[in-house]
Amino acid sequence: MEFKLVKKDPATEARQGRISTAHGQVETPVFMPVGTQGTVKALLPEMLQEAGVKVVLGNTYHLYLRPGHELISNLGGLHKFMHWSGLILTDSGGFQIYSLAPLRKITQEGVLFRSHIDGTKHFLSPRLAVEIQQALGSDIMMCLDECPPYPTSFAAAEKSLSLTTSWAQECRAAKKNTPQALFGIVQGGCYRELRQRAAAELVEIGFDGYALGGLSVGEPKDIMLDLVREITPLLPENSPRYLMGAGTPEDIVSCVAHGIDMFDCVIPTRCARHGLLFTNEKKVVIRNARYRNDEGPVDPSCDCYTCRNYSRAYLRHLFVAKEILAMTLCTIHNVRYYMRLMENIRAAITEGRYHEFCKEFLSRTNEDK
Amino acid sequence: MEFKLVKKDPATEARQGRISTAHGQVETPVFMPVGTQGTVKALLPEMLQEAGVKVVLGNTYHLYLRPGHELISNLGGLHKFMHWSGLILTDSGGFQIYSLAPLRKITQEGVLFRSHIDGTKHFLSPRLAVEIQQALGSDIMMCLDECPPYPTSFAAAEKSLSLTTSWAQECRAAKKNTPQALFGIVQGGCYRELRQRAAAELVEIGFDGYALGGLSVGEPKDIMLDLVREITPLLPENSPRYLMGAGTPEDIVSCVAHGIDMFDCVIPTRCARHGLLFTNEKKVVIRNARYRNDEGPVDPSCDCYTCRNYSRAYLRHLFVAKEILAMTLCTIHNVRYYMRLMENIRAAITEGRYHEFCKEFLSRTNEDK
Repeated sequence: MEFKLVKKDPATEARQGRISTAHGQVETPVFMPVGTQGTVKALLPEMLQEAGVKVVLGNTYHLYLRPGHELISNLGGLHKFMHWSGLILTDSGGFQIYSLAPLRKITQEGVLFRSHIDGTKHFLSPRLAVEIQQALGSDIMMCLDECPPYPTSFAAAEKSLSLTTSWAQECRAAKKNTPQALFGIVQGGCYRELRQRAAAELVEIGFDGYALGGLSVGEPKDIMLDLVREITPLLPENSPRYLMGAGTPEDIVSCVAHGIDMFDCVIPTRCARHGLLFTNEKKVVIRNARYRNDEGPVDPSCDCYTCRNYSRAYLRHLFVAKEILAMTLCTIHNVRYYMRLMENIRAAITEGRYHEFCKEFLSRTNEDK
Repeated sequence: MEFKLVKKDPATEARQGRISTAHGQVETPVFMPVGTQGTVKALLPEMLQEAGVKVVLGNTYHLYLRPGHELISNLGGLHKFMHWSGLILTDSGGFQIYSLAPLRKITQEGVLFRSHIDGTKHFLSPRLAVEIQQALGSDIMMCLDECPPYPTSFAAAEKSLSLTTSWAQECRAAKKNTPQALFGIVQGGCYRELRQRAAAELVEIGFDGYALGGLSVGEPKDIMLDLVREITPLLPENSPRYLMGAGTPEDIVSCVAHGIDMFDCVIPTRCARHGLLFTNEKKVVIRNARYRNDEGPVDPSCDCYTCRNYSRAYLRHLFVAKEILAMTLCTIHNVRYYMRLMENIRAAITEGRYHEFCKEFLSRTNEDK
């Protein structure tokens, strides 16, 4: 993987860049829809491509448990398995173990946990996390980390961070000489001092890219934004910086201004399946009776397949009638909304006007609330 | 609507023909996937087109109750509402009232029933059935009929048939001078004498096409096939003949040999959503553990999007993981299977070898059982 810094915004920390991998090039800042179980829910890969998606995220925890990384490897890797020719970033599996799996036990060697599907016992070590991701064949792999909940005491966060750093070293050592990139993850809870230490330790080990993890886990929004603002500039300028699990359009616009290059979040896809649609104006709750007769598209300014061909009235009908097509059409729209947002963000950086873009975007969405 | 008889098979009653309407031409024999609530479940209209679908069926009962025919009419009709540029055939609503709605009461004037959605009372008359279908703007409308259950006594079936004939006259009178076609429906239970009478009465009234209704309602398969064989030739040769609610691939192949031109059935779409896939060999139950590692397509002889791009192992994974995409990919395959079946049927008739085709097809599928 190569990362090229193309342009820096004069008034903010925003950057426009380019990631090159065996599965193509990606302009940053980039948003990566989540494809938990080998599919971005309700979409064909061609729909992702049409929406402008270049990278999807795969969840190592889910794919390891079902159908299994060895099965996917035997069938030619995750790209072939899910018929996706773009990039894939896989997480390490840690976050889902902490949030989904019962009866987990964390030791120096790794995490013992039970499957949330059938209760079977499994043990994930830093080495295995890398081996699974190598078997999946993702373009970007993530180190196994420990993700402490919010709030966590300084002492507990410090102890957790030592483990994360030690695991990062093991992951780095386990990585074979493949074209796959490996990213380190900055933890440290909500403590600036620990986050600074984490960043320094990871840079010392040396990774292809650096992520901020353990944010968007329930802490106040201001704390998250402050940490992103303070920690991101400590990460190497010539490597991509990834804020894991974020976020809302407002979070993305704010964090790009602090120098973040990569984002992933279930918001656009999950909201779509619940009938919450993003637009350049207010959000649309498509089940609302006000849309019963509405012949207009979800967003008149949107160029997505759904907005080009279907009325709000039809989408509302599909939702009320519990038709599967509702999920597909709404997900197409929300994913395209996020992709257009990223296109606008990149254009603003390229043209040196990100500060104005950011200010205008955030004031507009704040008015909506 | 125009119907042109293109070719008659020398050894069977099979016919190849062409229906022409404002929404294009359709080669017969034709199979029409069911789009109950303004969508063929889990598919985009473009997927139907790619599979070779020319006509979809819309359910008047469902669309009348939700979102309402007036709403659809105000938004430009059902074609525009559901973004479908091909043909639409709508049923009369009767069959769903008899099978879904509680507390129905049938009188000379029509059917009083309660909505299965919210219990509200509604009254459907023959005139209203036509008015609803005219508001929907379907290309082919069906008369309101009474569909007696199996078994029904001769006396009850005879009484029911009188009502159906009387309603057929009212529907014919209610039809405005639009390009929409109106088909009559032959009822009469399992009694040949009543079916003959029904056919004669409908031909006397005069319709654009004729359907056999009240079959595939639980009667033994032999009785259905015997009735189709005996009654179909009594219907005008130069009008399309439609067997409502059928059927399996074997039913279709058999009934084409008896002179049927049009079919509709939920089998391909409903089976797909339950993971039952049609192939030229045995049916595939995709959840089966034997497909866990299977890198082959559902059917190596199939040219559908799903078979071109996905393994059985991936489809099984999607089903086991309860992913929406499983429904979409499996429905694409089954609909294409039915369309290829109809293509093969038409080719066999065109080439004057339908008798051999039929014999070979039925012996092959009987071996499977």
